[in-house]
Amino acid sequence: MLSKSQISFVNALQQKKQRKEQGLFIAEGVKSITEFLNSDYTVSSIYCTADYLERFSKLTQKVKIHEVTDAEIKKLSALTTPQHALALVEIPEKTAIVPESFKGKFSLVLDGIQDPGNMGTIIRTADWFGFEDIICSNDTVDVFNPKVVQATMGSLSRVRVTYLELQPFLAAVKLPVYGALLDGENIYTKNFKEEGLVILGNEGKGISTQIIAEVTESVTIPRFGKAESLNVAIAASIFCSEIRRKSFDIKR
Amino acid sequence: MLSKSQISFVNALQQKKQRKEQGLFIAEGVKSITEFLNSDYTVSSIYCTADYLERFSKLTQKVKIHEVTDAEIKKLSALTTPQHALALVEIPEKTAIVPESFKGKFSLVLDGIQDPGNMGTIIRTADWFGFEDIICSNDTVDVFNPKVVQATMGSLSRVRVTYLELQPFLAAVKLPVYGALLDGENIYTKNFKEEGLVILGNEGKGISTQIIAEVTESVTIPRFGKAESLNVAIAASIFCSEIRRKSFDIKR
Repeated sequence: MLSKSQISFVNALQQKKQRKEQGLFIAEGVKSITEFLNSDYTVSSIYCTADYLERFSKLTQKVKIHEVTDAEIKKLSALTTPQHALALVEIPEKTAIVPESFKGKFSLVLDGIQDPGNMGTIIRTADWFGFEDIICSNDTVDVFNPKVVQATMGSLSRVRVTYLELQPFLAAVKLPVYGALLDGENIYTKNFKEEGLVILGNEGKGISTQIIAEVTESVTIPRFGKAESLNVAIAASIFCSEIRRKSFDIKR
Repeated sequence: MLSKSQISFVNALQQKKQRKEQGLFIAEGVKSITEFLNSDYTVSSIYCTADYLERFSKLTQKVKIHEVTDAEIKKLSALTTPQHALALVEIPEKTAIVPESFKGKFSLVLDGIQDPGNMGTIIRTADWFGFEDIICSNDTVDVFNPKVVQATMGSLSRVRVTYLELQPFLAAVKLPVYGALLDGENIYTKNFKEEGLVILGNEGKGISTQIIAEVTESVTIPRFGKAESLNVAIAASIFCSEIRRKSFDIKR
């Protein structure tokens, strides 16, 4: 049985301010929760049906369980068709960023991405292509926004997302900084070397002027038709794919 | 001044049944409307502010105009932050599909895509990469759903989208049928030839069994990390990109 105060506590976590204050975020759905349970994240509590509990009893032994009905989950959920479980997960402590930790690999940098769906899809795509790190400007949408968490489909449990002041970070890091821009080198023939950062800009405004100044190599996805631009998650995925394709070519 | 009956008429077009009955769909936003005005589509009427009218008077000469305020547009719009114009556009007559018209080029085939954002993004991406045609199973989300139209960012005015019974069409068309599947040939080394159809499946279930039977070549986007799957619009974009990259290689 769900109390009114439980409902308002969980609903309040839709807001960033409340998430920060409580140190918790919402993860919905069986798959997503399983991935958080199997990760370095700490799942604080799960609201779930008796059926769910039976299926996942082994995995959830150490977690505080609230057994509820599907109708009750609906009151907690922001989804139109909620699944049989909703978890509250602890927001990890911020760890200091060591620029050296980005050497020898590729990472994504997001400059002001606003749409939760785009953000979540970028995290999921990064996870598919084996990019472990995403660096975000402080004005990028909050990664613990429930819509972002949902769109990552569990990949948030594996990809490390860090918010920071981008400009000083980029100025300090000694790596190639690839910018997704309209007038750069053709991505298909571009040599990506062995390491670097790939910057993707805001949905409407692109990469901000201050950050463009830190780009060492402009790269463009050639246009064959007439659309004015690509969705930012699509652009991110083509960068991830091209970088991996080329490493694959090398390994053959 | 907006009447109650105008508001309910436009709001009703959020529903597929009403769109079909009235033969109209909603396009929102200045850019998107401009692209429809410049296309083969017929824009039936525009609800817009005096400012919009002044800026676009030349383009909108032949269109029925309802001058309204931004506050009134909010009553018509399904967006959280509506722009200064909303157009009603005629749904084009269904034209018979000629299988021969797909020869000598690549087209996308969508088998049961459900999410309007995914559908719209696929259309926008197809337009960027110069794919002129998208064939959809009858259970794919309606392309004139306002959320789809919005996500295409005007590209719907250029990409032809056709709904049909997929299986007989695929059985009849004499083209390579590439299926985005998990156990196929590596997309990076795959030879795509000069023409074909690329099938992408439903978000949860993938390509349906009946349609898999029509696939002549299974193709896979290699996984380098741990995500269980890719978003379908991301998968579509990597197919479009790889096909164009290879045609580009040939042309060099």
